[in-house]
Amino acid sequence: MTCGYFDDERKEYVIRTPRTPWPWINYLGTGDFCSLISNCGGGYSFYRDALHRRITRYRHNNIPADVGARAFWVRETDGSIWSPCWKPSQELLDKYECRHGLGYTLISGWKYGLEASILFTVPLDRNAELQRVTITNHSKSMRNISFYSYVEFALWNAQDDGENFQRNLSIGEVEISDSTIIHKTGYRERRNHFSFYHSFEKPDGFDTDRDEFVGFHGAMFEPVMVQAGISGGSVAEGWHPIAAFRHDIALEAGASREISFMLGYAENPRDAKWESNLIGKSVNKTPIVSLINSIGGFGKIEGIMRDLDKHWEQILSRFHILHKDTKLVRMVNIWNQYQCLITYALARSASYFESGIGRGIGFRDSAQDLLGCVHIIPEKSKERIKALASTQMSSGACYHQYQPLTKKGNSRIGTNFRDDPLWLIASVSAYIRESGDWAFLEERVSFDGGKETDSTVFDHLKRSFDYVQNNLGPHGLPLIGRADWNDCLNLNTFSDNPDESFQTAGDGEGGTAESVFIAGMLVYFGRDYVQICQRSGREEIAERALEAISKMENSVKQHGWDGRWYLRAYDALGSPVGTKKSREGKIFIESQGMCAMAEIGAADGMPKIALDSVKEHLDSEHGLTLLWPAFTNYNRKLGEICSYPPGYKENGGVFCHNNPWVIIAETIAGNASRAWTYYKKIAPAWREEISMLHRTEPYVYAQMIAGPESNRYGEAKNSWLTGSAAWNFVALSQHILGIRPHWDGLLIDPCVPADWDAFAVRRFFRKEHYEIRFKNQSFIGTRGIKSITLDGKALDGNIVRPIGDGKSHLVEVLI
Amino acid sequence: MTCGYFDDERKEYVIRTPRTPWPWINYLGTGDFCSLISNCGGGYSFYRDALHRRITRYRHNNIPADVGARAFWVRETDGSIWSPCWKPSQELLDKYECRHGLGYTLISGWKYGLEASILFTVPLDRNAELQRVTITNHSKSMRNISFYSYVEFALWNAQDDGENFQRNLSIGEVEISDSTIIHKTGYRERRNHFSFYHSFEKPDGFDTDRDEFVGFHGAMFEPVMVQAGISGGSVAEGWHPIAAFRHDIALEAGASREISFMLGYAENPRDAKWESNLIGKSVNKTPIVSLINSIGGFGKIEGIMRDLDKHWEQILSRFHILHKDTKLVRMVNIWNQYQCLITYALARSASYFESGIGRGIGFRDSAQDLLGCVHIIPEKSKERIKALASTQMSSGACYHQYQPLTKKGNSRIGTNFRDDPLWLIASVSAYIRESGDWAFLEERVSFDGGKETDSTVFDHLKRSFDYVQNNLGPHGLPLIGRADWNDCLNLNTFSDNPDESFQTAGDGEGGTAESVFIAGMLVYFGRDYVQICQRSGREEIAERALEAISKMENSVKQHGWDGRWYLRAYDALGSPVGTKKSREGKIFIESQGMCAMAEIGAADGMPKIALDSVKEHLDSEHGLTLLWPAFTNYNRKLGEICSYPPGYKENGGVFCHNNPWVIIAETIAGNASRAWTYYKKIAPAWREEISMLHRTEPYVYAQMIAGPESNRYGEAKNSWLTGSAAWNFVALSQHILGIRPHWDGLLIDPCVPADWDAFAVRRFFRKEHYEIRFKNQSFIGTRGIKSITLDGKALDGNIVRPIGDGKSHLVEVLI
Repeated sequence: MTCGYFDDERKEYVIRTPRTPWPWINYLGTGDFCSLISNCGGGYSFYRDALHRRITRYRHNNIPADVGARAFWVRETDGSIWSPCWKPSQELLDKYECRHGLGYTLISGWKYGLEASILFTVPLDRNAELQRVTITNHSKSMRNISFYSYVEFALWNAQDDGENFQRNLSIGEVEISDSTIIHKTGYRERRNHFSFYHSFEKPDGFDTDRDEFVGFHGAMFEPVMVQAGISGGSVAEGWHPIAAFRHDIALEAGASREISFMLGYAENPRDAKWESNLIGKSVNKTPIVSLINSIGGFGKIEGIMRDLDKHWEQILSRFHILHKDTKLVRMVNIWNQYQCLITYALARSASYFESGIGRGIGFRDSAQDLLGCVHIIPEKSKERIKALASTQMSSGACYHQYQPLTKKGNSRIGTNFRDDPLWLIASVSAYIRESGDWAFLEERVSFDGGKETDSTVFDHLKRSFDYVQNNLGPHGLPLIGRADWNDCLNLNTFSDNPDESFQTAGDGEGGTAESVFIAGMLVYFGRDYVQICQRSGREEIAERALEAISKMENSVKQHGWDGRWYLRAYDALGSPVGTKKSREGKIFIESQGMCAMAEIGAADGMPKIALDSVKEHLDSEHGLTLLWPAFTNYNRKLGEICSYPPGYKENGGVFCHNNPWVIIAETIAGNASRAWTYYKKIAPAWREEISMLHRTEPYVYAQMIAGPESNRYGEAKNSWLTGSAAWNFVALSQHILGIRPHWDGLLIDPCVPADWDAFAVRRFFRKEHYEIRFKNQSFIGTRGIKSITLDGKALDGNIVRPIGDGKSHLVEVLI
Repeated sequence: MTCGYFDDERKEYVIRTPRTPWPWINYLGTGDFCSLISNCGGGYSFYRDALHRRITRYRHNNIPADVGARAFWVRETDGSIWSPCWKPSQELLDKYECRHGLGYTLISGWKYGLEASILFTVPLDRNAELQRVTITNHSKSMRNISFYSYVEFALWNAQDDGENFQRNLSIGEVEISDSTIIHKTGYRERRNHFSFYHSFEKPDGFDTDRDEFVGFHGAMFEPVMVQAGISGGSVAEGWHPIAAFRHDIALEAGASREISFMLGYAENPRDAKWESNLIGKSVNKTPIVSLINSIGGFGKIEGIMRDLDKHWEQILSRFHILHKDTKLVRMVNIWNQYQCLITYALARSASYFESGIGRGIGFRDSAQDLLGCVHIIPEKSKERIKALASTQMSSGACYHQYQPLTKKGNSRIGTNFRDDPLWLIASVSAYIRESGDWAFLEERVSFDGGKETDSTVFDHLKRSFDYVQNNLGPHGLPLIGRADWNDCLNLNTFSDNPDESFQTAGDGEGGTAESVFIAGMLVYFGRDYVQICQRSGREEIAERALEAISKMENSVKQHGWDGRWYLRAYDALGSPVGTKKSREGKIFIESQGMCAMAEIGAADGMPKIALDSVKEHLDSEHGLTLLWPAFTNYNRKLGEICSYPPGYKENGGVFCHNNPWVIIAETIAGNASRAWTYYKKIAPAWREEISMLHRTEPYVYAQMIAGPESNRYGEAKNSWLTGSAAWNFVALSQHILGIRPHWDGLLIDPCVPADWDAFAVRRFFRKEHYEIRFKNQSFIGTRGIKSITLDGKALDGNIVRPIGDGKSHLVEVLI
């Protein structure tokens, strides 16, 4: 059962019932101002940093779910109350529709012959959310209504906002200036920023004190002021500042009226915070006026929407597919790329599962996220890589997380996640292959947030590679440290205390547990490193790296192979992890994916055998599980992984992030059918039909789908901000479609199912647009092509070398 | 307007409307298990530590307010739904009553002729909250209802519970065993504790999954299962575990039925966590069975209530007044002592203003809290003093906070709050004067949580005194460090960054700002220190201390006097703070109170002049404000104090904690009338009549009442956990009533209003009970007595020396 449908033409997902099984959300804003918005209008806004600059207050885990922060009510003259977004009133609507588009959301509700639709968007380069309300009287008689709009302000620091009531309930302040309600808590002291809610049409009443508007014992279903059809004109001082407007509207039959609101964020210079004659009393409103004017100057919302559409059109034009499979088309052309960009921008900070107050930007997360959007935003990717690299220590170790505002490594969690350095190589490789920007290697970047002398980007890569290859364990495999990609496999930290973190328990140094997964990474991304060395004239370093890679392959073959699959690791006592000898956790996905991608032991058929084992033991109706069988009990030698009930998260859930590694490995092995089948099992567009089971949005990936050993098999969690977006896009675009940025140009190496006859991709690469037309004549579903032409001329090999003329070119590929 | 009344006979506050202006709460539990409960049944429970062992989930700052964690509904056969506690259904009741008693709360609701009353309590020495529901059919016909009871479990760490959804939504687990629903999240891994909700009568249905019971879009007003009159038998796996029972009850006219529930906490040995044949699956239920049996064995709830009553009777018997003023009687005999004990037990951790996740135990908070209950629990006070002292550094500096579970100083906030060491002297002085336990001085206590060699308690005191007297500033006044008692006066830390703490900004070392308040403390508590030295045979140390005190008095007289009042401080540049020369913050209360208590400059009349200035500038209808005039703008030289809007908190609010210092000083000055007037202005019993303005509970002190410069003048905040409780009890009992523990015995030194003719106090001291009868014949309202007899014999002086016979004695005092 679905709750809506894809409107591919308008690039929207259309939701037709407000009773989705989980709030289905969208993200507004491409710059510093970000709003989350659900299909019922719930969600929250922040400026740059979801922890320190939270603009509106959201109650995660609330009852009723997803109510607050933003709300609208229509009050009829007879006192009946309904909400165009269904919530918060939850009065049954005659018709409801929510359209989540690229950077905007349109929610409409019909009741008693009235239609109220609200368009939400954050204009490009503006720190504001616009809300345009259109109310139309479809009935046959004159109608008088009061329209209420509402936002609840957060007191900036989102964590403190939910904890420190002994202080916070005394500090709230607002200022009311014509049709603008300014939230100025903290402005009297160190803040030079404030937020505001503005009505473009003069309101008939307002409130700014939550208890006055909602009622201290009241509910968002029907605030007391809405029940009474009045406004209190309340001025918040302490407690809970809000902004609520009332517009009394008379509509002839058939008439329509628009009212618009803006939720904005603004800053003043520290020496010009106040109106000059009212220091400490009246906020300097210059930035509000200029924001309002600049919005007006944009030709109001139509112009803003045109600009936004253009923005997204341009972004999505860089990779565009024509294909008979509409599900594939909507994933590739719209939703997967959209999710990649949002995940890249927000890291893991703010979603309906990430509260925005938990953590900084993950080193490995970001390095992977940008794999999915380096073709769209190469410049921004480069800057992010530099930010990541600048938190690296000169030893080559990397801080596992860093704070976006300070760009300092987070010392609470520290370093010693031993896969981190290799992700730096992966991201630099992706950036250079996409951009051809070899000069980047020689740019200078600091170590440890500037605490140590800076060096070249290449030197950062060298230290990364050396750090891993110089820190091997008893089996010649890389030490795992606190954890590798799987943060929950904690082989060197032994925690019995539930009040401590699994990862940071103990000092975490000196443990000799080893990771076969990192070994696979060293081989796979090490080959990119070798290319980088060779192509930048560092032959000797390349030689040594090749030796290390070859040695590592041998170590894996000798000590990392369990007979039918790759081991996962060795624990701190030297016992294998992920072996048939274990009762639980016999086989793990990560080492199969990475080692098979790296083709370790290919001469002995290891990758193919491992992939067959994946199919046998990890495949399920809802995707490939992370391991099998799930752990039923805690084992302090393994750590957090066995803290989850069987079938959830890393303990046997379907982790959508690592499925693509197996998909890629299957394409390398030439098995198109399996790759495609695996791809479809977790791709949201294909799961739309089981929305009530899947539960999260059918247009974006979730981090995890509950596995067959759980009682909620097939139910997804942690949608939106997940590395699944990037890796699935890489698997599909670079390995199934096989359009892969290569050092020398665009490599064309498809591995598509036998029944794909013809399809085409428009791909922007470096300076040119390529129209790549595929024709499948072999119908055997394996990797490789028969022939390829560029602008009608046959190519030698399968690499389209950059032309540099900035024009469009035609590539024809025969499979 | 009141919302209820004091039932002094039953030692209860009786609330007659559920629509109180703020949830009015009570605390259940005297040991490790603690429940907060509001007059609508809201609140939460925890075991020992409100951060790490949260048992039920509470949503502070929710809409609707105070709904969740604990809930009850009655469903009638016609589908109508109501709640005995009014919330969560909020269906209008025909009659409602809440009785908050000592360690129990009884809430009753009547609707449609049915009465449902629920008695909540935590039995002595049991880790469980009992809920006994009595339903009586007062109507004339047979009634069939379904009774639903509900708790929502927290996933133990209260902070993580509200932030870490990407993990938490996958880990929830329950186990259902007959009439017990076990919440076992985390038990499969490192936890050996679990919670449970048990029905003593077999239920007719249950649910454990919140979304199933309430409905994902549902509300607590009417959960979907209650609407339908059924139960789902749901088994939570992830998402939100709850425990909900349904009892179908048929009641003849006039009949009554009882059902009882228990919310419990239990631990198993690590090697016996599971039933032996179901490792990892089935919790070892031995502790549940034994808890249920022990409750049964106590003669059910009547026996439990008798034990509880006895417990409190004994506690309150140590200080008991007979007086014509009923308000005074209920403050002294019941509520102020009750609040003192609860504040002492919980420090500042868990209330409706303190979220239980913010901080550790405050050094100075605890040292002051125990001043209010050392006469009741001298042994526990001694242990707390040792815990505090053990976090002191050998330099004499004290950690400002420590973690109760680890007893380690909190290094994030660190030391350098320069008044802290002197509070150690204050608390030891209070303990020895109360107990006569001089041996305590020679007990050994570590430094810095055991990191440095231990020493005697006396040595800790010596280092405390020396630390302050050796760290003086340019005016010979004590350095203030990060702050003194007023955490918000930050003279050495200069913060412009809103994302940092005012107190910990900068390194905080080396600042030369000085505190006149600490100077007053050094003199006032220094005299106790001198007594301790002299009486323990440390004459030489006493001599040196006396010199230091005398020097300090001179410094204050010379540099700490502004002409009409004591200065507050000198800032880091040497400019005075709290001077008539300032435009704002001319006069501060703290230095007036403390220096006048210490009688600094008495020969020159300074205390009296200062007290007159307090009356002139700080007195208001709702108490003495902290300063005048309030700061209208931020001044980085002063810090957090000017971050509050004028009239709130430290910025010109009425801080109930420091009013008693002025009250004490007035008694020392012999001005009984002023002392008594000040006392009554903030004492809750006198504020009961303005409950709708005062807003917080009329039976306990709030930390702060908004001052005259605010727009909500008279409105209280931060009730329950505040040093106001202890200091007001000290002021009343030791200085107005004048029954003061002295080194040599019980000093009788009253300073009562002229119109008090006769009153009596029963006071337990060391080993004896004293019946102290006062007769006022002078009617002049000043300090002192005319004569005093002990068991009929005239005493020389006004000290009743301990007799040691453990019997009751009669003291007659003529004023």
